[in-house]
Amino acid sequence: MSDISKSQKAELWNVAHELADAARPIALQYFRASEQELENKLDQGFDPVTIADKSIEGEMRRILAERRPDDGIMGEEYDDVAGTSGLTWVLDPIDGTRAFISGTPTWGVLIGLDAGQGPILGIVDQPFTGERFSGGFGQANWARVGQTNTISVRKCATLSDAILFSTMPDIGTAYEIAAFQRVSVQAKLTRYGTDCYAYALVAAGQIDLVIEAGLNAFDIQGPMACIQNAGGIVTDWQGGPAHMGGQVIAAGDARVHSQALALLSR
Amino acid sequence: MSDISKSQKAELWNVAHELADAARPIALQYFRASEQELENKLDQGFDPVTIADKSIEGEMRRILAERRPDDGIMGEEYDDVAGTSGLTWVLDPIDGTRAFISGTPTWGVLIGLDAGQGPILGIVDQPFTGERFSGGFGQANWARVGQTNTISVRKCATLSDAILFSTMPDIGTAYEIAAFQRVSVQAKLTRYGTDCYAYALVAAGQIDLVIEAGLNAFDIQGPMACIQNAGGIVTDWQGGPAHMGGQVIAAGDARVHSQALALLSR
Repeated sequence: MSDISKSQKAELWNVAHELADAARPIALQYFRASEQELENKLDQGFDPVTIADKSIEGEMRRILAERRPDDGIMGEEYDDVAGTSGLTWVLDPIDGTRAFISGTPTWGVLIGLDAGQGPILGIVDQPFTGERFSGGFGQANWARVGQTNTISVRKCATLSDAILFSTMPDIGTAYEIAAFQRVSVQAKLTRYGTDCYAYALVAAGQIDLVIEAGLNAFDIQGPMACIQNAGGIVTDWQGGPAHMGGQVIAAGDARVHSQALALLSR
Repeated sequence: MSDISKSQKAELWNVAHELADAARPIALQYFRASEQELENKLDQGFDPVTIADKSIEGEMRRILAERRPDDGIMGEEYDDVAGTSGLTWVLDPIDGTRAFISGTPTWGVLIGLDAGQGPILGIVDQPFTGERFSGGFGQANWARVGQTNTISVRKCATLSDAILFSTMPDIGTAYEIAAFQRVSVQAKLTRYGTDCYAYALVAAGQIDLVIEAGLNAFDIQGPMACIQNAGGIVTDWQGGPAHMGGQVIAAGDARVHSQALALLSR
């Protein structure tokens, strides 16, 4: 995508941030809301995360139809839209629905922009903490209440020094769980329960490794752009492309990636 | 402790908040700090959570020596101090050190005030999100940037509707893991990785159940005060007192507590 001009890049960044900005107040309206607060808004029972998911993605699609009518859209909640520009917005309005319904601030709004071979920019936004992790065109940032810092992955030479995250111990099939455990027993520390926030922590140089299975494209493209543009590496468990989801391994340091990959693919 | 006057209660609340206020900036100075940022501050290698732990508890003890010289102190980092007032401050400067070193905002500063039979007030403070959960003398609150809301546990009639949290799947001995699993398989959802923040979510009516083992008094007294004063129940796995730690079960609804207890103690 070296043929994207500087002004085009700025426009794509602006649109991505506009999407994340639009998502925040909607997500926060439903996060930790009580049944009482929502009773007039919900016709079909108390399912705030589903309502939030659909409302946010609807609003994002409205913005894209206006701002980027030639781009495609792939989102969790509605049908794919084919584009003509070669660019596709890949949207997960609320990633980490279990975290969302539990009141834990580790879910996120995920936005990726796929140029055909994977994301060229992406955002992981956490509305409750007010943090926005982003990556694209060779730079990655963390922003919160007016403050913006460049972020980068951290060095980690060996798996025995690595902090590993996954959403839950039961990450997939028995084969996948066994593969994950081969890595986990060699890592310094394994933690669970963070959903997309774990990928953001890799990009920000706080942890070293995330391993998951059964992902969709919209689960990984936003986080992937943050990590890649912060200097990290995201592949599938065979070392191939991961931007369409499936079994994913994300690492800050290529050495840890390589050591974990050898154990996963054994 | 019905003999504590209204003005004494206000003073104890003020001191508890003063301790939490003092902890915040110290904790945030070390949370997510880079080696470079800390290199002038750390003589003995890069261990920010240990430094933060000791610095915070040192400052809390300095405040207590000045404000409450007759009270006892039980803390994670330094020796117990015997008091003469019958009241003991129970302090965990950074609960959730694994969360802290991973950059996850689910650790907390824990403050409890034990009158001999358990906490009469307590605080769970999360400096990064800016949230303070507190409970004492029959009331419980959630506060953030100037906003304060009363909190209470939520109703949950059956374990099959309950959201269960624990810090990690490997919660203790093989016996303890098996007991936990008996409850987990019957719960609607099990989540890991939240440390003290999970107890705060019970108090705030966001989740229903936390089960852990191997706790110390300073791990549980702050959270326990929040949950009890929000209408919940905290006991050991036999239904007895939990304020000295060990195997702990915390529930928002007594019905779920009873159903889980039957499985744990089987």
